[in-house]
Amino acid sequence: MSRNITIEMLNQIPVQDQQIELVERKCLGHPDSIADGIAEAVSRALCNTYIDQFGGVLHHNTDQGEIVAGESMPKFGGGKIIKPIFVLLDGRATKEFNGEKIAADTVALKAAKDYLRTILPELNLDQHLIMDCRLGTGSTDLRDVFKPEAGQIPRANDTSFGVSYAPFSDIEKCIREISSYIDTTLRPKYPVYGTDIKIMGLRQGNTIKLTICCAMVDRYVSSLSDYVNYREKLAEEALKVAKTCTDKKVEVSVNTADCDIECSLFLTVTGTSAEMGDDGSVGRGNRANGLITPHRPMSMEATSGKNPINHIGKIYNLLSNELAHTCVEKVDGIAEIQVRLLSQIGSPIDQPLVASAQIIPKPSFTVKDIERDVYEIIDSGLENITSVTERVIRGELKTF
Amino acid sequence: MSRNITIEMLNQIPVQDQQIELVERKCLGHPDSIADGIAEAVSRALCNTYIDQFGGVLHHNTDQGEIVAGESMPKFGGGKIIKPIFVLLDGRATKEFNGEKIAADTVALKAAKDYLRTILPELNLDQHLIMDCRLGTGSTDLRDVFKPEAGQIPRANDTSFGVSYAPFSDIEKCIREISSYIDTTLRPKYPVYGTDIKIMGLRQGNTIKLTICCAMVDRYVSSLSDYVNYREKLAEEALKVAKTCTDKKVEVSVNTADCDIECSLFLTVTGTSAEMGDDGSVGRGNRANGLITPHRPMSMEATSGKNPINHIGKIYNLLSNELAHTCVEKVDGIAEIQVRLLSQIGSPIDQPLVASAQIIPKPSFTVKDIERDVYEIIDSGLENITSVTERVIRGELKTF
Amino acid sequence: MSRNITIEMLNQIPVQDQQIELVERKCLGHPDSIADGIAEAVSRALCNTYIDQFGGVLHHNTDQGEIVAGESMPKFGGGKIIKPIFVLLDGRATKEFNGEKIAADTVALKAAKDYLRTILPELNLDQHLIMDCRLGTGSTDLRDVFKPEAGQIPRANDTSFGVSYAPFSDIEKCIREISSYIDTTLRPKYPVYGTDIKIMGLRQGNTIKLTICCAMVDRYVSSLSDYVNYREKLAEEALKVAKTCTDKKVEVSVNTADCDIECSLFLTVTGTSAEMGDDGSVGRGNRANGLITPHRPMSMEATSGKNPINHIGKIYNLLSNELAHTCVEKVDGIAEIQVRLLSQIGSPIDQPLVASAQIIPKPSFTVKDIERDVYEIIDSGLENITSVTERVIRGELKTF
Amino acid sequence: MSRNITIEMLNQIPVQDQQIELVERKCLGHPDSIADGIAEAVSRALCNTYIDQFGGVLHHNTDQGEIVAGESMPKFGGGKIIKPIFVLLDGRATKEFNGEKIAADTVALKAAKDYLRTILPELNLDQHLIMDCRLGTGSTDLRDVFKPEAGQIPRANDTSFGVSYAPFSDIEKCIREISSYIDTTLRPKYPVYGTDIKIMGLRQGNTIKLTICCAMVDRYVSSLSDYVNYREKLAEEALKVAKTCTDKKVEVSVNTADCDIECSLFLTVTGTSAEMGDDGSVGRGNRANGLITPHRPMSMEATSGKNPINHIGKIYNLLSNELAHTCVEKVDGIAEIQVRLLSQIGSPIDQPLVASAQIIPKPSFTVKDIERDVYEIIDSGLENITSVTERVIRGELKTF
Repeated sequence: MSRNITIEMLNQIPVQDQQIELVERKCLGHPDSIADGIAEAVSRALCNTYIDQFGGVLHHNTDQGEIVAGESMPKFGGGKIIKPIFVLLDGRATKEFNGEKIAADTVALKAAKDYLRTILPELNLDQHLIMDCRLGTGSTDLRDVFKPEAGQIPRANDTSFGVSYAPFSDIEKCIREISSYIDTTLRPKYPVYGTDIKIMGLRQGNTIKLTICCAMVDRYVSSLSDYVNYREKLAEEALKVAKTCTDKKVEVSVNTADCDIECSLFLTVTGTSAEMGDDGSVGRGNRANGLITPHRPMSMEATSGKNPINHIGKIYNLLSNELAHTCVEKVDGIAEIQVRLLSQIGSPIDQPLVASAQIIPKPSFTVKDIERDVYEIIDSGLENITSVTERVIRGELKTF
Repeated sequence: MSRNITIEMLNQIPVQDQQIELVERKCLGHPDSIADGIAEAVSRALCNTYIDQFGGVLHHNTDQGEIVAGESMPKFGGGKIIKPIFVLLDGRATKEFNGEKIAADTVALKAAKDYLRTILPELNLDQHLIMDCRLGTGSTDLRDVFKPEAGQIPRANDTSFGVSYAPFSDIEKCIREISSYIDTTLRPKYPVYGTDIKIMGLRQGNTIKLTICCAMVDRYVSSLSDYVNYREKLAEEALKVAKTCTDKKVEVSVNTADCDIECSLFLTVTGTSAEMGDDGSVGRGNRANGLITPHRPMSMEATSGKNPINHIGKIYNLLSNELAHTCVEKVDGIAEIQVRLLSQIGSPIDQPLVASAQIIPKPSFTVKDIERDVYEIIDSGLENITSVTERVIRGELKTF
Repeated sequence: MSRNITIEMLNQIPVQDQQIELVERKCLGHPDSIADGIAEAVSRALCNTYIDQFGGVLHHNTDQGEIVAGESMPKFGGGKIIKPIFVLLDGRATKEFNGEKIAADTVALKAAKDYLRTILPELNLDQHLIMDCRLGTGSTDLRDVFKPEAGQIPRANDTSFGVSYAPFSDIEKCIREISSYIDTTLRPKYPVYGTDIKIMGLRQGNTIKLTICCAMVDRYVSSLSDYVNYREKLAEEALKVAKTCTDKKVEVSVNTADCDIECSLFLTVTGTSAEMGDDGSVGRGNRANGLITPHRPMSMEATSGKNPINHIGKIYNLLSNELAHTCVEKVDGIAEIQVRLLSQIGSPIDQPLVASAQIIPKPSFTVKDIERDVYEIIDSGLENITSVTERVIRGELKTF
Repeated sequence: MSRNITIEMLNQIPVQDQQIELVERKCLGHPDSIADGIAEAVSRALCNTYIDQFGGVLHHNTDQGEIVAGESMPKFGGGKIIKPIFVLLDGRATKEFNGEKIAADTVALKAAKDYLRTILPELNLDQHLIMDCRLGTGSTDLRDVFKPEAGQIPRANDTSFGVSYAPFSDIEKCIREISSYIDTTLRPKYPVYGTDIKIMGLRQGNTIKLTICCAMVDRYVSSLSDYVNYREKLAEEALKVAKTCTDKKVEVSVNTADCDIECSLFLTVTGTSAEMGDDGSVGRGNRANGLITPHRPMSMEATSGKNPINHIGKIYNLLSNELAHTCVEKVDGIAEIQVRLLSQIGSPIDQPLVASAQIIPKPSFTVKDIERDVYEIIDSGLENITSVTERVIRGELKTF
């Protein structure tokens, strides 16, 4: 059966060329991202448990959960946590199948804690964390078991949609690259930079202003001047990275709300504001492409934690993102593309009700020139849609 | 100081005229809306408590919270709740000020339960609910106390933005009107219709397809045929309402996943799926205009529960919505308008960094014709921005 | 089969005649008693639910639970609760039987709250209470279902014992009567007297010193002198009651830790110290006869909340108490009697391993004179042991 | 001021010579003992934190807490935990002193988990445990700070008492020695023996029957016959130990409720029944001498977790136990001694209202012969009462 793929011209100014553009990223240790990361880690762990125990993935959705902030007393040289962070795991999972019980709760707790260890290495899970698990009980029909190798296409859980776009604008590239640079290059050398970082970018015309709020880990900061040095260091490094992403004018400011008196520094014991007042929830932070982009089409669906078998809110958001970027990489002449995938509850997920690509062509191109190639990329992406599921389970696709 | 208000032409096809349009509303008893409603009720109750005790509103943000589903055994004529719904209240509030303690936790619990009584009258709070409160402790500077009558303008808590648009498209009107009609007219006569209703609308060209998922309250349904009758009744009534909102072709289907065998009916004991498997969170449902509109610009910020004094994520979303609709009502020639308000942390909230209106004029109009009037509406709205705060506190503005 | 009943002389000075005697009672609103009362209310509610649903009582034990104190700000004329009391329900219950689910959690929540309403009428359950339920899942064998009318004798769940004594000494009578008088006569007239009362009695020789700690409900106390008046009123009334119970010299002091300055008054908003700092647990307060009697034999078992079918820690403590008092009432010549019932796991509960009565005869009597009658009372009590179960379920036997 | 110490003859048959004697011990991994051990570990950790931070111990009582059982699926060779154990920490602690905050919650969590690691080495705290902390806020008067070296005597927190006796009877010795032997000698060689062991002893005349219920750790048991072997091994070893404690006839049975079919074996994953259905609470298990002795005078007070500074329920129970045993060791002629210490609220704890020793002398002795020595032991013990506090803080005194 041929797929319902429509390709249209989008009569619009590319975001890149609009006057104002606002973009944000909540990095790994931001409370909302912590919630997302835990939700996704739990879902992946459940998938693997189900596969080990039954050869296939059973029904679950763990796109829920709450991070309730603790209280801390950071100070130069190292402070302490006064009240632990509280984490609630919820959502639901299949806890019994074919008469066999599944240790869903213990799997979830372990996955969540293992994940926290990787992103908040300064957090002592024994002392600084209370984690509760109120995972509900879901049920799985025999026919709904997804066996990765079986070649069968699951049916959509809902009438819903996924949406994405490509390419990234300059400001989006700056933010993504800075985030990645801190995680992979800067922090390993300077553990003072906590993982709770919010990067906001505002472009007005040709000027990009990047504001970085970065939690500093107090035991690596000896004094106010030390703090100021680290702040400046980060601003310089971020500027360098930004310069590789854009020719526009870039300004970077770091922890600007600081007034250089101790009380208002962004100083933390563990590198996240969740230790001292900021709560977080699943689905409130970055979209599936790692950014919050109010000038772009966005889906409200939480991608993290949803089951990767048939949950449209997860699969179509991830797939539309891949499709849009593949189109831009493989097909000449696309200034901007938006891809929307709309499911119909109960239909196979490789047969969306509509797969729509809207394209702003580059000056000398028309949609006509490129629609054939775009069609084939989308068609082929849908043909291989279960690869999204498989890569999610293997942890190869990021959801936030 | 004059405000930085920019008014531009938006070179785009109005959503109303695009080929595909997708809109959704999660009504009051949907788990995500329950979470939103509780968050907002708690914030309002705190505002009033602070005003009573100190003459002004103190710092708080309760835009957090989690609804963890229970388990139920609905059946025709009336079933039962097996496992209670769990509700976590979090966020933070000022619990001590000027040496005086504030009963923030008890205020929050009461507000949340009072609210639940109004939207889930079938839920027995003694038996069917476990509500925990882990509200953190915030602090309030003397200078941050908002005294409603004092005429002072609070400063923005963050660099953030609000966005909205007007007018509503046909499909948006349909959904809003049907939701309202059920709440105010249909349910009072037919309490069988629970408050957990999701209305999805998909327009393809000139055909609007509305899908209503409505939780039926089991004790008002005696049999399968009774259920089918109520389902049809709702479809008919919704169609009638829709006809008053659009000339387009409308199809309505209700509870379509039902296969007319008992196991898959949307039958509930209390009128919400939170009793039996669906969790909910603050900020995951409707935007501040009551809709989820993936083809429109949206803010990811949770509006509900945020403090109405200086939280841009709340105030600017509410205000931009009002401004857009006022412009359409008061000014001729606007086919579509988008209003964005961008704050600068620490600046007075009536002085946004940018207030931007993008307008698609009606055929015979230009932006030139209307920009003066739009400017004045926006300028005046910002001038009176604290009225948003006051109306939120009085419960006159809806946030979801 | 004849029962193994042994009757011996106890070569000891009756407690009544010893030099020192210490007795205590924690009345209904004491945090430990609240825990006991909830545990018992939940067990009774489960019994009745099981009987309604299945015609017999299923396995459960709810002799667990924790009362975690809140915070309050009492003041003359009426103060407020700052932080709610937290109540955890645990233990375990059969939640599924013969393929049918049982709403054990909702039953438990309702029973616990209904009970709290009766003993803490000033506590607003919506605002002042967080109640969580973590009742585990027990399982019931078909053969273990107790059908009240079936005449079958359950088998002991454990090798355990019950113990009691009679008659009450003067000091024990004083305490029991004062407690009862306050509950039934004084509080209905003077609601200022909260239900959290601890009565301690110390007898040294012929002088009884009663110390009453009574939570005063603040909204019924207008001033310090008012408080002092109520305190004196209670002392007078208690003394009057005590005089009816003993010829010994009695002194009564009320709320003696008070130093007549406000900060140290026992003033409360709701009539229990659980609102402001004192936690409570099941099984930590009164023994099954309503008293704590360190000079008497006592069982450490929590009687409240245990299943009344085959839990020796409940049934034998209640029965031994009844047997001892019946012996004293019906048989002449007993100065003091101690009754111990020792079970053997798996044996019918009407066939204890040993039922032992130890008797201090009155001066002119010997054990020989009375052993026949005592034997028959014990034998008959064991014969009718299931009446204990039935009366527990009907709420006719107190457990604390 | 001389102390009010009374020494009397106790006209009674020593327990050792009575016809029936019942004794019980709940070893370290029994749910009630887990609760006690955690409570005590938390109190000690708080003491040390307070000393480090302020040079003295501040007010706290952590003699509360609840162990809510999980669910497990043990099997030969190693099973798994399905649902984690839930542990609630409560009680209260000083969280702020002299304007300085104290990390009481994090200290409590760490102490509780460190303790669990020592007694339940098979329990994976990440996966198998949910620990919540709802420690209330206590306050400390300046004058109540206990500085170990300051030589000041704290004042009694309550009118309460402690009671104990010596020497241990044969059956008590058997139970204590077996418990100790398993912990120190047997388990290190055979980790199959879990820490959740209940040892009950019933003596009828000259026959001691010991019933040991010992949780077996499943991964060290390969089969039913293996299980039976380990059971027999334990019975043999226990019998050997018992023989060193008594000349009476001893029978030992281990896990007798087992019917040698898998379903009813006492097989566990982690060595405690808390993993699968048995809840536990502070103060419901062993008395301060490590035993439950219904034929002996007992205090209902929970000793574990109470502050060791001025809480009579802790200090007097520990001290009376020491005094009784010292008397028996140091003074000839004591067949049995009972020591009771009765405090008066507000008086220095080294000045009890009454310190009473009741003595059953050995055949050829009178109380006259020994009262001088007993007096001096008690007087000296009270003189050095703060050494109890110090040794509790250093972990040298066991409370259960």
